[in-house]
Amino acid sequence: MIDLKQIKEISIRSPSKIALVIIDGLGGLPHPETRKTELETAQTPNLDYLAKRGICGLVEPISPGITPGSAPAHLALFGYDPFRFTIGRGILEALGIDFPLQEEDVAARGNFCTINDEGIVQDRRAGRISTERCLELCQQLGQIRIDEVQLWVSPVKEHRFVMVFRGGNLSPELDDSDPQQVGVRPNQIVALSPEARKTAALANEFITKAKAILANSYPANMVLLRGFSRHPRFPSMSEVYKLKPVAIVTYPMYRGLAKLVGMEVVDSGDSIEEEFTALTQHFATHDFFFLHVKQTDTAGEDGDFWGKVRVIEEVDAALPQLIDLQPEVIMVTGDHSTPTLLKAHSWHPVPFLLCSQFCRPDDVAEFSERACAKGSLGRFPALEVMPLALANALKLTKFGA
Amino acid sequence: MIDLKQIKEISIRSPSKIALVIIDGLGGLPHPETRKTELETAQTPNLDYLAKRGICGLVEPISPGITPGSAPAHLALFGYDPFRFTIGRGILEALGIDFPLQEEDVAARGNFCTINDEGIVQDRRAGRISTERCLELCQQLGQIRIDEVQLWVSPVKEHRFVMVFRGGNLSPELDDSDPQQVGVRPNQIVALSPEARKTAALANEFITKAKAILANSYPANMVLLRGFSRHPRFPSMSEVYKLKPVAIVTYPMYRGLAKLVGMEVVDSGDSIEEEFTALTQHFATHDFFFLHVKQTDTAGEDGDFWGKVRVIEEVDAALPQLIDLQPEVIMVTGDHSTPTLLKAHSWHPVPFLLCSQFCRPDDVAEFSERACAKGSLGRFPALEVMPLALANALKLTKFGA
Repeated sequence: MIDLKQIKEISIRSPSKIALVIIDGLGGLPHPETRKTELETAQTPNLDYLAKRGICGLVEPISPGITPGSAPAHLALFGYDPFRFTIGRGILEALGIDFPLQEEDVAARGNFCTINDEGIVQDRRAGRISTERCLELCQQLGQIRIDEVQLWVSPVKEHRFVMVFRGGNLSPELDDSDPQQVGVRPNQIVALSPEARKTAALANEFITKAKAILANSYPANMVLLRGFSRHPRFPSMSEVYKLKPVAIVTYPMYRGLAKLVGMEVVDSGDSIEEEFTALTQHFATHDFFFLHVKQTDTAGEDGDFWGKVRVIEEVDAALPQLIDLQPEVIMVTGDHSTPTLLKAHSWHPVPFLLCSQFCRPDDVAEFSERACAKGSLGRFPALEVMPLALANALKLTKFGA
Repeated sequence: MIDLKQIKEISIRSPSKIALVIIDGLGGLPHPETRKTELETAQTPNLDYLAKRGICGLVEPISPGITPGSAPAHLALFGYDPFRFTIGRGILEALGIDFPLQEEDVAARGNFCTINDEGIVQDRRAGRISTERCLELCQQLGQIRIDEVQLWVSPVKEHRFVMVFRGGNLSPELDDSDPQQVGVRPNQIVALSPEARKTAALANEFITKAKAILANSYPANMVLLRGFSRHPRFPSMSEVYKLKPVAIVTYPMYRGLAKLVGMEVVDSGDSIEEEFTALTQHFATHDFFFLHVKQTDTAGEDGDFWGKVRVIEEVDAALPQLIDLQPEVIMVTGDHSTPTLLKAHSWHPVPFLLCSQFCRPDDVAEFSERACAKGSLGRFPALEVMPLALANALKLTKFGA
């Protein structure tokens, strides 16, 4: 398949506009009684209208059978091969809490854990302490002073936190202190390159000081660090596709992902309707619109079938705002499936529709898993979405003479 | 996917015969009034008969969303990965005018252009001078003598020409003189490897002499060269597939492409019917038949919907000549789509049919974009066409034990 470098050579700037609506965790599984999925159950006249006018298929987010995390699934839809464009665990957690990362920062994912008197790990999650307790402990660790660097310790959820170093000459090439098992001592942090020796020393200093501070905080009496990483430098969508992209998103993680590929992230309101209104407000000044709906995934993870149905209907009701703007290309899909039956992300391919003046419509007249399976796009990799969108917006020139 | 080297290991010579009819620019888009494409509009009883007896699908020429040039699109159908088997611009232009290239020739694509008194490029195309004027100027430049090499300057169309050097120790590793923008001077040609230094000097000498000759030929008072290249050495189809292939083609570019992959190119007449007759005449002596129909693409680029419909019907009417020969495998497809609605090549996948005794027919009973989308081959890469053809002709042995 064509790669970003080759796409860059044939992409051209033009006034046409592309909208990509990602309904998080859109795909589902049939309800045991009705035999219909969440999407098949929802009343979606506007999605059906777009499906009828457009082409449909089922997107494979990463690779068949593979359940994606949100980060690689989104990157793939934006055209970035998730096997090549990887994001370190520390950075991913920092994006997830909207930490204002700078380019040279080194971030690590942290766990509060329980050790015994001999320093041996007994519980890697410190009994999953409450998020409130995590916040208190992070404030204590935030008082730690380490020469030459600035330090942040920010709570995530339960036993999870993010540690960020900022300062001169840092390197993320460090091994984890987290041994990933109980019954052993945490690892001393080791530099994986000569340049990382100083950072390793600083990280070990942090751990020593943290251990002292947490001595009386059983069960959270120690920390484990892993996934030291730095903000990756991805080519921007403006660079590769010559687009001026804007992200309409409400959750921190997705804001971070959008920034990673060079999207402008704007104030998006709270409700789904407000998100579509925000898109309307930026329509004149941009030519690529990523609108993200989170609530479907949340309902899916909660196992709330009817809640997910309602969110899909809410998206459908807000769609006319977008349709009325008449962008040259409208796409609707999900980053992955989150069937309420599984209460989790899953590997199932995701319904996809693309509507444009030049898309050569197929016979699909309804937006659903079953109908999309019969669409002319068939089952296809997420990485094909952006080239298809650019082609339909007439933003690609010929390959070869 | 399997590559040419692996195919070579399992291909066997056998008496069975394969015919590949490429209807250039075959795929289309629905007419705004009838909602039917050119192919869906045409009366095609013979194509429908083959579709019904065979298997169908939609071919992706290069990569989804990518609009192919004719060269990479044909190479892919012949089984040559167009990302790997590339052809330099100069050679491609030379093939396009049927220039009798030799292996060691170095060719460049030339533009007549306009420079001002300070030597700055004002128009990279010299106001698109007429083809007649181009011919006159090429004859003048053809008089240039350069030590040690033979030189040809051959007109292409309007401001375009091909320059070919033949002689000892030439190298195509040269940068362009064409700056690809106005407002700057043409570049001095630079050798990209030590071996190319001599060729760079010769090319610069040519440019200096051309400039002197063209001094009074405003607006065509200078030349720009780009895409220095040598005839690539591709493994031949006889070598890889153990076939004895013949090309029935009427346009120079496609004759050149066929020669590149080792096909014998024979006299093909002028009309579509004559092409099929030519195939008949070579049927006994060859086992692979590439028959190319150009007129569909031309009608598509002219925006002539009904003209394209008529050409498709003409192909259909000539098909019985081929069907009556009973080759073991008949395939019909296009190298890409050229919808009359767009008046240009496009990215849309192309209808494909394969008919053989062993093809496990699907339910498709009509040769059209919409029907092929439901074929058992689905949407599939052009690179899969040759392995499929060889398999159906029983020309491939088992892979692995």
